[in-house]
Amino acid sequence: MSLSRNQIKAITALQIKKFRSQYKQFIAEGDKIVQEVLAQTHFPVLGVYALEDWVTRNEALLATRPALTVEIISPKDLERISGLRTPNQVLALLEQRDFGLEETTLTNDLALYLDGIQDPGNLGAILRVADWFGIQDVCCSPDCVDLYNPKVIQASMGAFLRVRVPVVSLDSIARQFSGIPIIGTTLEGNPLPHATVPQAGVLVIGNEGAGIRPEYASLLTGELSIPRAPGGGAESLNAAVATGIFCAYWRMGQTNA
Amino acid sequence: MSLSRNQIKAITALQIKKFRSQYKQFIAEGDKIVQEVLAQTHFPVLGVYALEDWVTRNEALLATRPALTVEIISPKDLERISGLRTPNQVLALLEQRDFGLEETTLTNDLALYLDGIQDPGNLGAILRVADWFGIQDVCCSPDCVDLYNPKVIQASMGAFLRVRVPVVSLDSIARQFSGIPIIGTTLEGNPLPHATVPQAGVLVIGNEGAGIRPEYASLLTGELSIPRAPGGGAESLNAAVATGIFCAYWRMGQTNA
Repeated sequence: MSLSRNQIKAITALQIKKFRSQYKQFIAEGDKIVQEVLAQTHFPVLGVYALEDWVTRNEALLATRPALTVEIISPKDLERISGLRTPNQVLALLEQRDFGLEETTLTNDLALYLDGIQDPGNLGAILRVADWFGIQDVCCSPDCVDLYNPKVIQASMGAFLRVRVPVVSLDSIARQFSGIPIIGTTLEGNPLPHATVPQAGVLVIGNEGAGIRPEYASLLTGELSIPRAPGGGAESLNAAVATGIFCAYWRMGQTNA
Repeated sequence: MSLSRNQIKAITALQIKKFRSQYKQFIAEGDKIVQEVLAQTHFPVLGVYALEDWVTRNEALLATRPALTVEIISPKDLERISGLRTPNQVLALLEQRDFGLEETTLTNDLALYLDGIQDPGNLGAILRVADWFGIQDVCCSPDCVDLYNPKVIQASMGAFLRVRVPVVSLDSIARQFSGIPIIGTTLEGNPLPHATVPQAGVLVIGNEGAGIRPEYASLLTGELSIPRAPGGGAESLNAAVATGIFCAYWRMGQTNA
């Protein structure tokens, strides 16, 4: 069956944040990611648009969701609705959800707070870091790139299905969980590995260029840094790379070799 | 002065690898990065195209290179030659260079070997990791994304000016430096932090999707991995993030807190 112009318009509109927020919907694309989408319960799945061949190969998986709308579409139509340069067999339409602070595990586990992360690839890579090291909450300031941006979803490689992403100010967290450690990652903080990441609390990652906003400085209960090697020249590390290093030291500890 | 059509064509052609390789030239854009370009001696600088205002503000720096061609151009012309969505004051034209294995420090320091890294953002972030931790050599397989790709240059934030990037097969390295450790980073390798990164040798980072190519398996003298947390879900970490974690443990060691 061919997709109607209105269907195509409704799906491609989700490339744009304004329409994603208005409809509270988003898309996830590609063979592997849609297989993960169908196996999860984090986000309601509204529909799947797939090439016939993909539907045939995934019959068993689709049978687990008998009520789901599955539209078999032509490669031409997939190209029309896809945001990828090379469309990949299938696209899923999902419903957004809001994550509340009340569901988080901030008081007994480490959580991340992203202060104005702008690059979709960075947010996606940070979600993978959290998912890899078993961090359940990646809180975002309201001016972070949208979790439901298709580039974030693709870069997260399915991690968005397992990590909670509340959008909230750091003030609200400090108010609601008064007394928990809120540790800023800065260039001047106490250096790893001798300084350690607290087992529970919030680790704050700043914006790619500007770092943590000055208004948040008074909320920080401590600061950590990754020391640059004596001969090192770079001014900073990529935000996702730095997050990965902090989380690795948090999870793996500093055991002597 | 207005740029000629031929000048504009010659510069914009450098967005494309074929022409970059043919002319052995590349571009670096933006206020900060061009300031670093003028302060380095890694790559010959062939010319600078800048707004009048930028030239005025950087007179002292430009005076250190009296022989350099500096063209004052209009915002319109900058837009014409820029590859950035938001052109940023200045563009430098540089000459490529080939890095030979004979200049490397493979036998007495750690070097990275990138096996088919495809994403320009990842290569840029990996160069920043190397630069931060004082790793001097980031060898690339011939099928890696081109170092001189403008997106790599921008993402490296100036790190490309301080790190050597020889393009070479892993076989050549193994032949030329017979006996040095060649450590693959894989999902099944010996886990950090108990297994350690050797102080000297080559750490091999695989392609974003496929990992290290099977033909290289017999060249590896060991394998390392970053253990996933028991509750962790992600299938892998982003290649630049993983590189950052390995290099952090290599440089900072595993000191007890």
